[in-house]
Amino acid sequence: MNLYAPPLSDIRFVLHRVLGFVPTLSHLPRGESLGEDLIDAVLEEAGRFAGQVLAPLNQTGDEEGCHFDRESAAVRTPKGFREAYQRFVEGGWSGLTAPGEFGGQDMPLVLGAAVEEMLDAANLAWSTYPLLAHGAKEALLHHGSAAQKETFLRPIVEGRWLGTMCLTEPHAGSDLGLLKTRAEPLGGERFALHGTKIFITAGEHDLSENIVHLVLARLPDAPPGTKGISLFIVPKFKVIEGGALGERNRVFAGNIEHKMGLKGSATCVMNFDGAEAELVGEPHQGLRAMFTMMNTARLGVGVQGLGLMERAYQNALSYARERLQMRALGGAKRPDKPADPIIVHPDVRRMLLTQKALIEGGRVLAYAAYLQADLRVRHPDQAARDRAEALLSFLTPIVKACLTEWAVECTYHALQCFGGHGYIREWGMEQLARDARITTIYEGTTQIQALDLLGRKILQLKGEGFRSFLGEIEGFLSAVRDPELARLAASLAERAKQWVELTQSLAEAAMRDPEEIGAAAVDYLFYSGYVALAYAWLRRLAALSERDPEAWRRGQWETARFYFARLLPRCDTHLAAIRAGKTSLMSIPEEGFTAL
Amino acid sequence: MNLYAPPLSDIRFVLHRVLGFVPTLSHLPRGESLGEDLIDAVLEEAGRFAGQVLAPLNQTGDEEGCHFDRESAAVRTPKGFREAYQRFVEGGWSGLTAPGEFGGQDMPLVLGAAVEEMLDAANLAWSTYPLLAHGAKEALLHHGSAAQKETFLRPIVEGRWLGTMCLTEPHAGSDLGLLKTRAEPLGGERFALHGTKIFITAGEHDLSENIVHLVLARLPDAPPGTKGISLFIVPKFKVIEGGALGERNRVFAGNIEHKMGLKGSATCVMNFDGAEAELVGEPHQGLRAMFTMMNTARLGVGVQGLGLMERAYQNALSYARERLQMRALGGAKRPDKPADPIIVHPDVRRMLLTQKALIEGGRVLAYAAYLQADLRVRHPDQAARDRAEALLSFLTPIVKACLTEWAVECTYHALQCFGGHGYIREWGMEQLARDARITTIYEGTTQIQALDLLGRKILQLKGEGFRSFLGEIEGFLSAVRDPELARLAASLAERAKQWVELTQSLAEAAMRDPEEIGAAAVDYLFYSGYVALAYAWLRRLAALSERDPEAWRRGQWETARFYFARLLPRCDTHLAAIRAGKTSLMSIPEEGFTAL
Repeated sequence: MNLYAPPLSDIRFVLHRVLGFVPTLSHLPRGESLGEDLIDAVLEEAGRFAGQVLAPLNQTGDEEGCHFDRESAAVRTPKGFREAYQRFVEGGWSGLTAPGEFGGQDMPLVLGAAVEEMLDAANLAWSTYPLLAHGAKEALLHHGSAAQKETFLRPIVEGRWLGTMCLTEPHAGSDLGLLKTRAEPLGGERFALHGTKIFITAGEHDLSENIVHLVLARLPDAPPGTKGISLFIVPKFKVIEGGALGERNRVFAGNIEHKMGLKGSATCVMNFDGAEAELVGEPHQGLRAMFTMMNTARLGVGVQGLGLMERAYQNALSYARERLQMRALGGAKRPDKPADPIIVHPDVRRMLLTQKALIEGGRVLAYAAYLQADLRVRHPDQAARDRAEALLSFLTPIVKACLTEWAVECTYHALQCFGGHGYIREWGMEQLARDARITTIYEGTTQIQALDLLGRKILQLKGEGFRSFLGEIEGFLSAVRDPELARLAASLAERAKQWVELTQSLAEAAMRDPEEIGAAAVDYLFYSGYVALAYAWLRRLAALSERDPEAWRRGQWETARFYFARLLPRCDTHLAAIRAGKTSLMSIPEEGFTAL
Repeated sequence: MNLYAPPLSDIRFVLHRVLGFVPTLSHLPRGESLGEDLIDAVLEEAGRFAGQVLAPLNQTGDEEGCHFDRESAAVRTPKGFREAYQRFVEGGWSGLTAPGEFGGQDMPLVLGAAVEEMLDAANLAWSTYPLLAHGAKEALLHHGSAAQKETFLRPIVEGRWLGTMCLTEPHAGSDLGLLKTRAEPLGGERFALHGTKIFITAGEHDLSENIVHLVLARLPDAPPGTKGISLFIVPKFKVIEGGALGERNRVFAGNIEHKMGLKGSATCVMNFDGAEAELVGEPHQGLRAMFTMMNTARLGVGVQGLGLMERAYQNALSYARERLQMRALGGAKRPDKPADPIIVHPDVRRMLLTQKALIEGGRVLAYAAYLQADLRVRHPDQAARDRAEALLSFLTPIVKACLTEWAVECTYHALQCFGGHGYIREWGMEQLARDARITTIYEGTTQIQALDLLGRKILQLKGEGFRSFLGEIEGFLSAVRDPELARLAASLAERAKQWVELTQSLAEAAMRDPEEIGAAAVDYLFYSGYVALAYAWLRRLAALSERDPEAWRRGQWETARFYFARLLPRCDTHLAAIRAGKTSLMSIPEEGFTAL
């Protein structure tokens, strides 16, 4: 009952006309073969796969969930998942953005993001399996030895194997410094891992012949806290000479979690019972390698939010056009029908426009971050790579946190548009809301993203990415000539100025008292997200052309005006909250939280 | 794993010290026997029933759900529900607030609300069965004939029978004017009903020996739209002389819905296949009678939101105190432990304080509305009854919509405090979020409440209840002497002034264009809710005494300050949205919503 039409036109609009990513990348190394036609062909093919292969398995996967067999410690994924994965591999999707030297197709990450958006929207639970492999790929690519790349990266790129990120332990979630899994040296480059990891997405399943676990653990001489964490490879099946599979390693799923949503994705307890492991990179430097995986995964989770809200919006819009209830307050709009379609009612429009504004603006925001991820690795100039790195690391927490929080909000609105039918499973809206709910938690909660943005990216790193981003906005604003665009641009210019002042005053407050950072962080993150989205919308408007269909063009303008008039003012509430400072949160004694 | 401790102290604080409901009602007719001791005994007993009988069935009921047997059209409720209902009846709870002449205990509705809050928090799905009966009771009491009261009301009061409200049809949800179920006259006072109703809570079950359906349908000569709707009684089993059960009536459940949550509550498709019915009240006057049920049920749904968020908060607070992750930014707070409890982190406090502020203020708001419901029926003076009626009808949409929207928000925050564990079913947090999600929809969506508030209560009824409420606030403010309270009071006074101006400007805009009502309604409702909540918090502070425990008293003050500093400013965003007017929503052409 739940529709999904891959939004190819809007994806193309953002990629080609807003970001102009082909000209940006095609004159750089590894970009020679890029062209709009090729890109569009990839997108279309991905859309077909998402819509025809994955989407039909979304609801059935949710109903069926994963199966755990305690005896064999095996996980069976829902019906159809395995076949869909085979088709994914056969289509060459597993290596889309991986380097050619390891069997990949060397496509830009920003294109990979667009493909991911469609897979996520079609079937988020299924898409977690390749997403996790993508994180493993990045870690191996940047931190693995040549032999490790050959042994482990290549089969992942080829799709024969999948991967995981084993970070969380029962007592160590956001705080990885507390983790206890230990690596016992076996001599040479071999270690035995002992410990238990939880919440391991795709920790065990039946999709691929092997699973490459990337595991954080402590060496015997490790200093305490985050400085004593190392990264290890633990294959489910040991790999023997020539890459063939050897005996089963001592890493087993202990159970799978029963969750609110994302039921087709196996979330495993993983027991490492002397599992044979090899070290990735230097001892005690695991956190750096982990962040390589994590940052990729964080942007990926932002894209998950984008995909879910796009799908929810499509359904809400279609329902709002068909469902007849009550007459327009200004007089009947469809006198031939027993009632008007609910899209005539202002508040239904408010809910639809909120979704449209956050989704279409959010798409620009997310893809723009991925483009920086491409520039970071592709640009021949070190200064340009550094600038891209700074921008990317600044944008990552904003994309991750805002797009997932907006996904929670938008799936809420979309469900609400359906009234009582939204609550019924058959319609599929409630699944989107349940699936969305994990995205503000995994790969670092919104709270962690907020501390990363304000505490680390702004304060510790002296706001290099922030300044770059502001510079980009200023450059854009100074080029605005269209008078109607100028009106909105003036509003963005004011917010940008306020953003700078706010940031400066927070930097000062943080010097006096570091708890001011924690007290402001989440509101600062949202404030930043709304300003960044205002800029994203202006970029969309600036990319419009007279040749675009009139109704769509007006839709873009009106959505932007709606955003500036009704959503951007949320900044003021966040501003008031930030200005209330830590006193408003920390003065209450701990016992004061309890009831009388 | 999910805790619930009935919040008896806070309920008592609100009932006795904030509202002073015993002195208010005890000098009125039917109030002679009221005393604090009696009230407290009732509350304690209800808390025991909720905590010990209902709470243990909450998670199991969710896991098991209801069972539908297609052959017999019978519904079996989850294990334990039936026994719990028997104990509910034996405890005399079914007649708590019903008049003595029909076997009830004549207790005030405000006390009934406090009891309901605890039942809802303990097990919302179970509590829907008696809640629906409550609506049926009210409709029969105010619109039934003497014979109907004797035949149908008494067994409901005694708990032997339960009731339903059969309103919605597949094509008629918010828009009841579209309903098609028809009543065919059989001669005398008998009718045969033909039609299908959907989303009928407690439409079929195994808790009581009979079910009294109150059904909206059209007589053959009915005018179209809402003016042609009549209310009928359709018992599941026909009632023969002396009140005994006769043959099965032709009303059958056709199916039960599979829902996002509230799984222990049977949501039925009901087929009326020539079911024998009798008319309640006058022909074509069904909507009035329906609103009697509906308004009771609407306040009741607000209380459901309250109960759910209270429970979610209790769990989040307890988890925040126990879960150790990371050190406080200002230095370790528990150096003896591997990390600090997460309650030291400012943003965890922000999430907890948001919940506490909305819950404890919301409790005052909800109970205050119920006190007006008592005054409306108990006060001997007509003018006082009219004033209570106006206040009640003004407050009802605010209580219903705000407390349910806040429940969605608060269960979101509470789940977020748990991190990944919040997403796991075992911990019970995700169930609270799923259960809460229906409350902004059923018994009139937030959108419908908003139109009721602004379109009907403010504009059509000339804002009589609004003026009463403002008068009450002004009276309160003018009596403030405490300087610290005066600081917050000044902020409320400013908002109240702004509220009046906003309301006046909306009244003018609505005269020019009725669509301005729909464009402003939801934001106006929230704006009103936040101002009303500010007043509720001042009432709490004014009721504090030197004799209260110091930590709790400070907790109250700091929560109020938090509310004024960080949540009340949400009004500004709503204000900006309202000021954007209908243009911001209606200018976009319908085709402009679609992607390129």
